[in-house]
Amino acid sequence: MTIELNSPLDMHLHLRDGDMLSTVAPLSSESFAGALIMPNLVPPVDTIEALLAYRDRILDATKGDIFKPYMTLFFKPSYDYDFLKSFGDELTAIKLYPAGITTNSEGGVSGFDIETLRPTLEAMSELGLPLCIHGETNGFVMDREKEFVPVYENLAYNFPKLKIIMEHITTKESIDALDKYENLYATITLHHLLITLDDVAGGMLRPHLFCKPIAKRPIDREALQKAALNAHPKVMFGSDSAPHPQHAKESCGCAAGVFTAPIALAALTELFEKHQKLDNMQKFVSDNARSIYGITPPAKKVILVKTPTNVPSSYGSVVPMFAGETLSWNIKEII
Amino acid sequence: MTIELNSPLDMHLHLRDGDMLSTVAPLSSESFAGALIMPNLVPPVDTIEALLAYRDRILDATKGDIFKPYMTLFFKPSYDYDFLKSFGDELTAIKLYPAGITTNSEGGVSGFDIETLRPTLEAMSELGLPLCIHGETNGFVMDREKEFVPVYENLAYNFPKLKIIMEHITTKESIDALDKYENLYATITLHHLLITLDDVAGGMLRPHLFCKPIAKRPIDREALQKAALNAHPKVMFGSDSAPHPQHAKESCGCAAGVFTAPIALAALTELFEKHQKLDNMQKFVSDNARSIYGITPPAKKVILVKTPTNVPSSYGSVVPMFAGETLSWNIKEII
Repeated sequence: MTIELNSPLDMHLHLRDGDMLSTVAPLSSESFAGALIMPNLVPPVDTIEALLAYRDRILDATKGDIFKPYMTLFFKPSYDYDFLKSFGDELTAIKLYPAGITTNSEGGVSGFDIETLRPTLEAMSELGLPLCIHGETNGFVMDREKEFVPVYENLAYNFPKLKIIMEHITTKESIDALDKYENLYATITLHHLLITLDDVAGGMLRPHLFCKPIAKRPIDREALQKAALNAHPKVMFGSDSAPHPQHAKESCGCAAGVFTAPIALAALTELFEKHQKLDNMQKFVSDNARSIYGITPPAKKVILVKTPTNVPSSYGSVVPMFAGETLSWNIKEII
Repeated sequence: MTIELNSPLDMHLHLRDGDMLSTVAPLSSESFAGALIMPNLVPPVDTIEALLAYRDRILDATKGDIFKPYMTLFFKPSYDYDFLKSFGDELTAIKLYPAGITTNSEGGVSGFDIETLRPTLEAMSELGLPLCIHGETNGFVMDREKEFVPVYENLAYNFPKLKIIMEHITTKESIDALDKYENLYATITLHHLLITLDDVAGGMLRPHLFCKPIAKRPIDREALQKAALNAHPKVMFGSDSAPHPQHAKESCGCAAGVFTAPIALAALTELFEKHQKLDNMQKFVSDNARSIYGITPPAKKVILVKTPTNVPSSYGSVVPMFAGETLSWNIKEII
């Protein structure tokens, strides 16, 4: 039994930099035709020089693979029309982080005053540049995303021409918001389709499943699964695959992030097959993103075959999701 | 500034066995006059021989200190009146675990059918033996204790002469239940008075604060603090101090439990002082337990003094709460 995917896309990916980039970039470029690259380096990607140089380092690390890095800029309310226009096609989207909300987000936005954000967001609207948001407040960990939904809605209402992507959503409330505003979209990760807080902290504590936003309740996972498995036209796959060295995960203060890039397509196929929704997978992992972003990824055919496959215990210093376990699908051929 | 405590008691303590017992028992017996010792060894303490032998090992490990181990038996529905009576004064309470709910609880109870439990619970009622319960269902991790409250209430209603101790409670719902049934009591830990899930998983993941039941919401902590700081007559201090070697906490699957025994009295004093409730501390850490259990602990005066004190990074292989941090109180003298 096989399944064929045309130009699968990962619309939310952390590749980091330096040695980590060299380790993890090929694990994405092998199976994906492209990915939206997060800009939260240290310092963040916020100039054209930094963006082009990072793009080149990614292309260098993924040499030999058909892979298009769709680059993003770290949101600042000081960006104006001319600055953003100068990027031309090199800029695909801008990523907004509330200050301090996740890894390397210290320089993010503190407060969502519409008038402060207006100049940049209007320039983005005019240029057709989507705004990707890590939508969490600094409230109680289980409520952060739910509390942020009014911010999404307020932005969507005030900037009706701006495409707003609610990144790595984890709650039923975010799914519900999708249908209230035409210009709200979302990415969903593999891990949030699979786990709840029970998997992180219900038995033993499992640091490799600890991420931000934290996995929520069964009712939330159900809403996410329903949207993804039915290929809701406003949702796209975005792995949020976030590598941290093993020692930073298994320690006294464990960093947030699940590393899924190398196993994402196989695990998604397993999930879609289990729910008899394989026919919808192409839309979730590629077609929806193409329409939402208006992009045409490079041609790349990925053929997966149903065969038990062991997941390595680590890739370099990074432990993937399902480390040491068996997945029922594997990538057979890439054309 | 000093505070004097008379015979402080820890009414929920894990001392384990073997080398771990030798490491941690003196850290409790130094500052407490007695403690209720949990029976979840491997195999569990379920015979008179096992109980007396464990008591002797504890006395051996705490030699030189004024310290009374109040022993408990691992609940089984097969215990009858004669069996329980044969323990005489050596048995203080029986601890009931739902099967598989926490460390070494595999042999616990599956289901709470009143008629199945009736013979043992009636024998306990007649003998005046309190029933201590780890009250969690196997539901979603944040709901487990709340879902268990009806079980507590059902037991309290059906066995009105049985003293039922809701162990290490973490929710507002459990606090509310205290006032609904005369025969419901509770222990509260130090860590649940101090932390919420935000401290465990809101920033970095902190395995040393991972415990069962998991820390809940701010509203729950507030309810626990209110009961403890006001010395609600039905609540007692029980640390649930649970040592695990550092490698079992900082690893791929981290064991549940916070180790607080050596810093419990200092940290509690800090909390009670902060809320200007120092006058209530004697009741919370000793007097309430004496009335509820009808026990008279050995005389032991513990004098704490307000002076900045560093907490060691570990005791043997065990990392305590506040490792490497500074507490504002310390034990000055024990008489």
